[in-house]
Amino acid sequence: MKRTFEVQPWNVVSHDLNQDDKRLQESMTSLGNGYMGMRGFFEEDYSADTLQGLYLGGVWYPDKTRVGWWKNGYPEYFGKAINAVNYIKMNIAINGEKVDLATDEISDFSLDLDMKNAQFTRSFTVTKGAAKVAFKFERFLSIEIQELSVQRVSINNLSDAAVDVTVDANMNADVVNEDSNYDEHFWSTLSTKQELDRASLVTKTTPNPFGTPQFTVAVEQRFVTDLAPKAVEQPAADEVSNEFVGSLAAGATTTIEKRVVLTTSRDYDTEAALTAAVQEIGDKVAGISYDDLFAAHAAKWAARWEIADVTIEGSDEAQQGIRFNLFQLFSTYYGDDSRLNIGPKGFTGEKYGGATYWDTEAFAIPVYLGVTDPSVTKNLLKYRYQQIEGAYHNAKQQGLKGALYPMVTFDGIECHNEWEITFEEIHRNSTIAFAIYNYTHITGDKSWVQGDGSEVLIGIARFWADRVHYSALKDKYMIHGVTGPNEYENNINNNWYTNYMAKWVLQYALEILPDVDDKNAAKLAVTDAEKTKWQEIIDKMYLGEADYEGKHIFVQHDTYLDKDLTPVAELDPANLPLNQKWSWDHILRSPYIKQADVLQGMYYFIDNFTEKEKADNFNFYEPLTVHESSLSASVHSIIAADLHMEDKAVEMYERTARLDLDNYNNDTSDGLHITAMTGAWLSIVQGFAGMRVRNDELHFAPFLPKAWDKYHFRFYFRGRLLEVAVDKAGSSVTLLKGEPLTIDLDGQKLELK
Amino acid sequence: MKRTFEVQPWNVVSHDLNQDDKRLQESMTSLGNGYMGMRGFFEEDYSADTLQGLYLGGVWYPDKTRVGWWKNGYPEYFGKAINAVNYIKMNIAINGEKVDLATDEISDFSLDLDMKNAQFTRSFTVTKGAAKVAFKFERFLSIEIQELSVQRVSINNLSDAAVDVTVDANMNADVVNEDSNYDEHFWSTLSTKQELDRASLVTKTTPNPFGTPQFTVAVEQRFVTDLAPKAVEQPAADEVSNEFVGSLAAGATTTIEKRVVLTTSRDYDTEAALTAAVQEIGDKVAGISYDDLFAAHAAKWAARWEIADVTIEGSDEAQQGIRFNLFQLFSTYYGDDSRLNIGPKGFTGEKYGGATYWDTEAFAIPVYLGVTDPSVTKNLLKYRYQQIEGAYHNAKQQGLKGALYPMVTFDGIECHNEWEITFEEIHRNSTIAFAIYNYTHITGDKSWVQGDGSEVLIGIARFWADRVHYSALKDKYMIHGVTGPNEYENNINNNWYTNYMAKWVLQYALEILPDVDDKNAAKLAVTDAEKTKWQEIIDKMYLGEADYEGKHIFVQHDTYLDKDLTPVAELDPANLPLNQKWSWDHILRSPYIKQADVLQGMYYFIDNFTEKEKADNFNFYEPLTVHESSLSASVHSIIAADLHMEDKAVEMYERTARLDLDNYNNDTSDGLHITAMTGAWLSIVQGFAGMRVRNDELHFAPFLPKAWDKYHFRFYFRGRLLEVAVDKAGSSVTLLKGEPLTIDLDGQKLELK
Repeated sequence: MKRTFEVQPWNVVSHDLNQDDKRLQESMTSLGNGYMGMRGFFEEDYSADTLQGLYLGGVWYPDKTRVGWWKNGYPEYFGKAINAVNYIKMNIAINGEKVDLATDEISDFSLDLDMKNAQFTRSFTVTKGAAKVAFKFERFLSIEIQELSVQRVSINNLSDAAVDVTVDANMNADVVNEDSNYDEHFWSTLSTKQELDRASLVTKTTPNPFGTPQFTVAVEQRFVTDLAPKAVEQPAADEVSNEFVGSLAAGATTTIEKRVVLTTSRDYDTEAALTAAVQEIGDKVAGISYDDLFAAHAAKWAARWEIADVTIEGSDEAQQGIRFNLFQLFSTYYGDDSRLNIGPKGFTGEKYGGATYWDTEAFAIPVYLGVTDPSVTKNLLKYRYQQIEGAYHNAKQQGLKGALYPMVTFDGIECHNEWEITFEEIHRNSTIAFAIYNYTHITGDKSWVQGDGSEVLIGIARFWADRVHYSALKDKYMIHGVTGPNEYENNINNNWYTNYMAKWVLQYALEILPDVDDKNAAKLAVTDAEKTKWQEIIDKMYLGEADYEGKHIFVQHDTYLDKDLTPVAELDPANLPLNQKWSWDHILRSPYIKQADVLQGMYYFIDNFTEKEKADNFNFYEPLTVHESSLSASVHSIIAADLHMEDKAVEMYERTARLDLDNYNNDTSDGLHITAMTGAWLSIVQGFAGMRVRNDELHFAPFLPKAWDKYHFRFYFRGRLLEVAVDKAGSSVTLLKGEPLTIDLDGQKLELK
Repeated sequence: MKRTFEVQPWNVVSHDLNQDDKRLQESMTSLGNGYMGMRGFFEEDYSADTLQGLYLGGVWYPDKTRVGWWKNGYPEYFGKAINAVNYIKMNIAINGEKVDLATDEISDFSLDLDMKNAQFTRSFTVTKGAAKVAFKFERFLSIEIQELSVQRVSINNLSDAAVDVTVDANMNADVVNEDSNYDEHFWSTLSTKQELDRASLVTKTTPNPFGTPQFTVAVEQRFVTDLAPKAVEQPAADEVSNEFVGSLAAGATTTIEKRVVLTTSRDYDTEAALTAAVQEIGDKVAGISYDDLFAAHAAKWAARWEIADVTIEGSDEAQQGIRFNLFQLFSTYYGDDSRLNIGPKGFTGEKYGGATYWDTEAFAIPVYLGVTDPSVTKNLLKYRYQQIEGAYHNAKQQGLKGALYPMVTFDGIECHNEWEITFEEIHRNSTIAFAIYNYTHITGDKSWVQGDGSEVLIGIARFWADRVHYSALKDKYMIHGVTGPNEYENNINNNWYTNYMAKWVLQYALEILPDVDDKNAAKLAVTDAEKTKWQEIIDKMYLGEADYEGKHIFVQHDTYLDKDLTPVAELDPANLPLNQKWSWDHILRSPYIKQADVLQGMYYFIDNFTEKEKADNFNFYEPLTVHESSLSASVHSIIAADLHMEDKAVEMYERTARLDLDNYNNDTSDGLHITAMTGAWLSIVQGFAGMRVRNDELHFAPFLPKAWDKYHFRFYFRGRLLEVAVDKAGSSVTLLKGEPLTIDLDGQKLELK
């Protein structure tokens, strides 16, 4: 844990430039607009350690799989979101000497990420001999015009004499990923064009042997400044540059704006169309001031916050935490493009390859359902529907029927490269179905599950019906050889979560089938024999249960209870975190749980279990859980809240709410935990406020954390927008928009009008 | 299955040169002398597909581990025996045109591997226009002078006119492995020296980041010929060459001998010492004729065969099979150097990296104990003792006490790179202890186990005592998270074999401890508390047993019986071999067994089980076994013989005896299955002849396979050499050397004098 930023309600601010924390600061000050995003690395060259990352949604490259020993059926590549053309560069020289914060004498340094308006501001004063100059760098990625990045640098001469200022603004397409297998160069430049006051380039991903799409990117930089443009040589084959010079009198200030427009072949067919679009957008914004561009951007953010903001009084840490989470989540994805999804690190780092995981369905969709228009979630559902051919392919690769959604993907085809994940962590498949259920349940819109969504659901059901096997010994259907949500175990049998969810998928499929629209019903052609088989599997699905030390346990997998069940609290803390201290085999055979496993399933269907079942399983599993996944804490917080274990619920909330702000796992330097950004919201809404939908009725049973004075959030439900406020006096629910509704608050029916 | 060589009792002969079978032929005609070895690739350039492999015992390189996701504790490299300087090259030109069997018109082609004398002969006639020339290439790797390779080419002009002959004999150190992760160049040439009639070079493995030893190799070629040497340019930086020319009259014959001496830094400290040794040996053999060099070599082979030969009458296939196996096994290892071991492909290919596996202890040592002087086995035991520091290191890497012998190694440090093998296939450790027991049992020599061997045994015992865990639920000690001998399952719990062997190790350690010599006892310092703990583990070791369909089964692992136990025979044959047809997850959750697992343990201690136990387990597991490991058949043959299931015993024998001769697994092109070469001998001696040691008494209960007329073998036992002969009339055992002995033959005591 390390807190390097100040606690402010709407801002993430630091006044320190510590070289050791540079990557951490870059992660924390990332910006994104769904279309593209970047780490908070500096415009000007910085000669110490830095991780320069600038990513474009849906632009990826297949990194050839390399493993010790090849296994039949392995995906041939691991898809990775790749670093794209670095278009924010602006090198500055004062009196001919380059500004470099790694070596310069600086003062008044500050970083300020304004979450309300999604702008990143950096300011500092550099002293170079007699010259003393103050800089302010501002930038934002417009959510009004997603192809647009806007930067402004203000330069104020604090010296007693004039200084010469040079700004060398360039764009460099010769970029690589740190975290790739082969230090591949993904990009080759197709063309460059360098004019006196603007420059552009077109770059394309290199061909690959796997037949995945190549991407072309066109990008142009233009400027608004009083500085004088100066003709320069093109710096290198993959780079373009514009230089601006001027003399700044003592006390004077000047500014230079850099506007970059970027288009990709995801949206335009030809190179000509790409460059034409760049010109068109560039021309359009040329006549608009920075302030007006910014105002349009900020207005759209204000509309997001209008619905989504959660206010917390009494804890500035908590207030900053929830806003940082929602800000980074929305910066990554706001439903604008159904071809995109939410990488575990969004646009803030390279880890996990920027691809789509089950995190989206399990953790992100419940939040989007609450605080964004249903169309946002719908696009996430469409994403999976559009990739169903890939899911059929994945199942076929395993010799199985139906659809297997991948653990990691860009296009539906599985592209992870460990057998214990790719082949075995198949519980992910059920989460895709659960998201359809969740959407239907919260929005009340059945058209998706009865229409195109039915193909996804039935495909997943067919996978499970083929993946189970019948154990003659036990007269049960079983699922052997899986990895559950707890990735600290591999290749286990009858993971309770996996079996429970598979059974639920079959049940839900049978429930939905009669209402599927004619077109899809004809296409799916589910036979009576299939339905009979599904029902048999449902009836005979093996779900391990046991009584253990007075508790009735849903057993994580067949032999879990045979382990040495020493609680985490009794371990010498020198062993923690396990993933850094123990060899992999030691972790695997230990009882320690990385993230909620049985409890994940109980969380999804929390009302299906008795108080005793919830309490017994929580009290059994939680002490064995090390929470070494960022996705663990929120589920525990919610179940603890359900069990009125308020201290535990708050403790777990605190582990998720400021995960990155306080660098809890000491890995935020790699990038933010974007899909875990949902945890705080889920903990507050489903945990502290006890939001449930029971028999189509919305329920709340709120409590207020001891340290807080008040919290307040808004929530979409079946066409309505509700507001929930909880303070020391009690709680209230208000209908802000939509038809009247009856809800349940603390067991009392409430008519909302 | 594909038989490309003729069935002859002492020779492996082919008259076909099929380009598709080239690699297969190269594997089959490999030569080795323990010190070095080579595939049967051609002396002259061959422009079609070929796998040129020439390897030096104990000369290896660390190939950097690359995996999808790094796991804590992974070995940093996979050690691999590397291709060494190709010193056998002799390019031939006739009238200036290069001989190339891939494109030339050839006749009278033959390959002949003489197993009796360990010589490889190749002959053919080439017609190039009017020129017609017959060639005969002979070569052997001397076992009298291990640094010496001898080649002879005879050239007979069958044309009506004279032909010009050129022989370009070179040595090339610019070699790579096909099967390496990074196409690394392992070698850099230190010096070359090219004289008119001889040439030499010194090459050294490149530095590596892992601190493993670098090897230097010095090699010189000299010649005996009537052809005239011709001065030539050095062909390339890593190559040296000598050229010989002459005109051969019609009908005339000439010969050229190439003698190569090679020394390595394994035996000499400095480059100067290496080259001096090369000179010294070269000078010594310079005065000796090919025939005399060959005679000395053949005489030593005759001595090996004198003891080891197994004669079989009535089946030429079986006769050739057993000899091929013993020949290749001895070519790989004959106990000359305790720093060397037996790679699964010996000197015949790259697969498995040429490193040491548990195959040595499980499969090879029992054969060496029977047919070689005990000192040969002793050196294999010393090998492990010398590497005990590595075994301590491996255990420590897993956070455990004691010694963990590696799955794959050159120097004792684990260097495989899959967690399910490296971290989990730990049953290998017990086999190291079993070999000590086996040696002691067969030779009667207790000095090893009571001396240095005790450190190995106690180290392994201490590992097991720390690796088990106590299950409170079952009041048993368990071993979770292992891979058994059946590598078609991973990360299983309570593998019966692993648990049984671990328990046995602790028992054997307790049994041996009182007699350990004072020096070792003091060093080991086993406490009473330790011994008490070991006894407790022995008493409470979990060993799964179950009654299943009328059989009493030792359960392979905890949930094995829950699988879908459809026998292999009921599978559509299109599914076989599983390792080519099914994805890995499918294999893992299937019941199908790659090689003996429970039966492996029953084989080691076959007299510890009742007839019913053996029959029930064999009849249960064998139908579920796909024998997709070359190490599977012999164990099944032996147990089947024990159960008087003679047809099954012979069927299993046939799968192992001609595994490579008939290319049973369709992979002999990669190299021979050296450690599986033991299977035929084990099947005959322990299977058909029923050899057992019971209460220090040697027992035989032979049967004769129906198709055979007679078999006969010799066998070392406690200082004696015995001869066993079995024919249709019955069986006899004769004492050839050593003190009188009472044995048991078919239940009758027999006094041998």
